[in-house]
Amino acid sequence: MSYCLAIKVNEGLVFASDSRTNAGLDNVNTYSKMFTYNVGDRAFVILTAGNLATSQAVYHQLEKDINSPSPEINLNLCEDLEAVAAYIGKLNTEIYSQSLEVQNQSALMGSYFILGGQIKNQEPNILLIYPEGNYIYASTDNPFLQIGETKYGKPILDRMINKKTPIADSARVALLSLDSTMRSDLTVGPPIDFVVYKKDQMHLDYQGRYKLESPYFKELSDTWAHKLTDAIHSLPKFSWEDNN
Amino acid sequence: MSYCLAIKVNEGLVFASDSRTNAGLDNVNTYSKMFTYNVGDRAFVILTAGNLATSQAVYHQLEKDINSPSPEINLNLCEDLEAVAAYIGKLNTEIYSQSLEVQNQSALMGSYFILGGQIKNQEPNILLIYPEGNYIYASTDNPFLQIGETKYGKPILDRMINKKTPIADSARVALLSLDSTMRSDLTVGPPIDFVVYKKDQMHLDYQGRYKLESPYFKELSDTWAHKLTDAIHSLPKFSWEDNN
Repeated sequence: MSYCLAIKVNEGLVFASDSRTNAGLDNVNTYSKMFTYNVGDRAFVILTAGNLATSQAVYHQLEKDINSPSPEINLNLCEDLEAVAAYIGKLNTEIYSQSLEVQNQSALMGSYFILGGQIKNQEPNILLIYPEGNYIYASTDNPFLQIGETKYGKPILDRMINKKTPIADSARVALLSLDSTMRSDLTVGPPIDFVVYKKDQMHLDYQGRYKLESPYFKELSDTWAHKLTDAIHSLPKFSWEDNN
Repeated sequence: MSYCLAIKVNEGLVFASDSRTNAGLDNVNTYSKMFTYNVGDRAFVILTAGNLATSQAVYHQLEKDINSPSPEINLNLCEDLEAVAAYIGKLNTEIYSQSLEVQNQSALMGSYFILGGQIKNQEPNILLIYPEGNYIYASTDNPFLQIGETKYGKPILDRMINKKTPIADSARVALLSLDSTMRSDLTVGPPIDFVVYKKDQMHLDYQGRYKLESPYFKELSDTWAHKLTDAIHSLPKFSWEDNN
């Protein structure tokens, strides 16, 4: 499995993804699932979960189209984020359909993508693109999108993320959501690719890659563990407990 | 879905289960998934997730056998927890097999059970019983068992529960695990059935049922939400953050 996450708050966007892939329990590997593109009037981050071959083929085609001398379409030509989502969705279904011709294991060949970013002075946004090529925006009440192994890391997002959450807090919550998922599911693993994009800056302000032993990530994870333990100890007592 | 949880720590056992059932999105109902039995030298709690008809049939047969004048087996006759687990497993597969004869939807007809308790001076324990009738104990490192919608509530258990965790803290963590799951998944819902069993007491010390508005549960949930927010705000800052 994979776990990828994007958050949209008023101040900007946050993206995080794990790097573990597995084709069976005895074939575990590390691949980045994040594609970034930042040229001129546009900045994009694309995350993927699902079939690695399909995802890589989509990313390769995006790069080919960028470098093509006479492209029909590429990331530079899209007028808005919806056009980018439709473009990625089309590539995804094309590659997916080619796989289906070879073998009929549809459930295992599809890939999911999260697209986020900003074009010119348009509103920054995040979208989830399905294997079928269609896509959805994040809701206003729960302004985040997840793909892959989504459940372990969802409660902290449900509790902490709304559109007014400061972007730095949102970034920390994203890392904690990854941290919780990695602890509970071995098929989600480090390093964590990480991008924070502040609205209207038009460049990907902060890109990082965290291993478990990276100083900031380790300090974050350890501090969180201590704070949770303190929080447990400060909860109200049951009526049947001794008061000593 | 359902969510049921049992924890085994050195001081005793904790059990918690939600009460929501749904047969399709438009057929949501409330049933307790907890069965308790406490007579003489034995105290049991049984939790269930899966097919409600199968689970109820198992619980009814357990009761019938207790009241039978000449039972082959019942909860009073079992020598140890393993015998109880095998007994429940056998009932489960018998009822499950009867359903299979009628319709071939095996995946939807099975039920899972968690059994926990103590008989005489034996070690208290918890076991998970599969639809196939076999069963497992909790591991020593992660001394808890979950059935149903298990993922949302697992990270807090992974972080907080080990065999030395005090029983009152374990009980609070169990409620928080239910709380997180109910917030993230609408098919898991209140009231929460809840039992705390202290080792060697031979009676179910504390049984409760919490609604969202029950004073203790509300205080616990609110305090936890505030503490988590405080914890987020006390995490280390990123290098790119303003220090003001």
